[in-house]
Amino acid sequence: MDRNAPIGVFDSGIGGLTVAREIMRQMPKERMVYFGDTARLPYGSKSQETILRYSRQIIRFLISKKVKAIVIACNTASAYALETVEKELDIPIIGVIRAGAKTAVNATRNGKIGVIGTEATISSGIYTDVMTRMRPGIEVTAKSCPLFVPLVEEGLRHDSVTDEIASRYLSVLKGRFVDTLVLGCTHYPLIRSTVGRIMGEDVTLVNPAYETAIELKNLLEEKGLSCCTDGEAHEKYKFYVSDLAEKFTVFATSILPDDVKRTEKINIEDY
Amino acid sequence: MDRNAPIGVFDSGIGGLTVAREIMRQMPKERMVYFGDTARLPYGSKSQETILRYSRQIIRFLISKKVKAIVIACNTASAYALETVEKELDIPIIGVIRAGAKTAVNATRNGKIGVIGTEATISSGIYTDVMTRMRPGIEVTAKSCPLFVPLVEEGLRHDSVTDEIASRYLSVLKGRFVDTLVLGCTHYPLIRSTVGRIMGEDVTLVNPAYETAIELKNLLEEKGLSCCTDGEAHEKYKFYVSDLAEKFTVFATSILPDDVKRTEKINIEDY
Repeated sequence: MDRNAPIGVFDSGIGGLTVAREIMRQMPKERMVYFGDTARLPYGSKSQETILRYSRQIIRFLISKKVKAIVIACNTASAYALETVEKELDIPIIGVIRAGAKTAVNATRNGKIGVIGTEATISSGIYTDVMTRMRPGIEVTAKSCPLFVPLVEEGLRHDSVTDEIASRYLSVLKGRFVDTLVLGCTHYPLIRSTVGRIMGEDVTLVNPAYETAIELKNLLEEKGLSCCTDGEAHEKYKFYVSDLAEKFTVFATSILPDDVKRTEKINIEDY
Repeated sequence: MDRNAPIGVFDSGIGGLTVAREIMRQMPKERMVYFGDTARLPYGSKSQETILRYSRQIIRFLISKKVKAIVIACNTASAYALETVEKELDIPIIGVIRAGAKTAVNATRNGKIGVIGTEATISSGIYTDVMTRMRPGIEVTAKSCPLFVPLVEEGLRHDSVTDEIASRYLSVLKGRFVDTLVLGCTHYPLIRSTVGRIMGEDVTLVNPAYETAIELKNLLEEKGLSCCTDGEAHEKYKFYVSDLAEKFTVFATSILPDDVKRTEKINIEDY
């Protein structure tokens, strides 16, 4: 395996860019191929079978780009597909769930952890399973927040309506006295301040995007797969989507450290 | 063409059931094959090219079911695909836009019409184009309302948050003194009472689902394609989706006059 090969990262759309951003920050030498499945998003309301089929197509696409490792930067796909696809691959693959779960389990003082996410992530029960396996006896309260993604995408990150909806969603978690809350959807770090204000300053917010980048870094080092060139690679970061490439470019430029010059649209159903 | 063949109806998901319901009410003898593209919804945020590709796949599927006519029960697909696909077909095909536009143009007294819909429907400009061609000189104000569908799907049809969001979206239309408002998304009839209360009782609300069923009825009669059997057909209504068949069955049963016994899941990408 070529240690200077790119890392493959995928998500149902734009949310996974919060993971890509952390990888760029923590591993500035690494090259990256990002795929956002904008033609078929959102994944959060689809079945396991469908998410698995979509994930396999995307993995075939990323492998055609000769990636050395894959990050599933989507909670739903991590919940539904990771366990199956990791058995089918001979390169390392990680998802956003394990790293976030581990951090939360280590952060809690009273053993009460909250998790928020899309309907699919929450109803899969994956965060609860993983955290309970890591530390039996902890109490996990999981709550789906289906309106958070549309509210963020409508630009209402700082708005009384988002405050009102967040208060309703989070009241069950406050009532259970959780001291740690996992932001179990890649969009949620974008409303971190609202969530933090409602939960109160004693509650630790865990951002799996950040933790996943650390896990990836450690994994590449351990396997001798960290990039070892200092030279600037030609087109260090490549972005592909299944639809609306220009809209993606604008959004990606707004949240990534460097400008995204172009995004290529591909037909993912060919893979 | 067999006049007792079924009518094909399709939508990106469940919204088109409001159209199916009107067809069942107005043409109780007709058989129907409904397809909801639940694996790839929503269409409202995707490009014209993608919507056209999806629509062609679905039309090939419906034709394999030997339908005598097709109704595009989705505003986005009507806006982006109807004009192209009607040239490729030798059976009648209609969309939800023309019928709604015609009714609105006939209903307005002051020549000021409002249209609300998804981002894709509104940015396509289709309602404005069609209505201005029907009656030059009218003033059309179009406003996208991206949160209405997630709010309806979250069960907040009668809720202060929906009232607040609706007040914001509709204020521009009230400011233009429209006397007629087209509900340009198949989910919107489900929040008709909220929209009606905010707009005021002097504003006529136009429901394209209702008008489309009337247009279809007239078209079938004109072409000699109305069903002429009195007997009960075996499995009069058939429902197909690309994902989450059981969830669809539950929702469809809640809004259609009769119970939906089963929904079959197909792989639409095979067509």
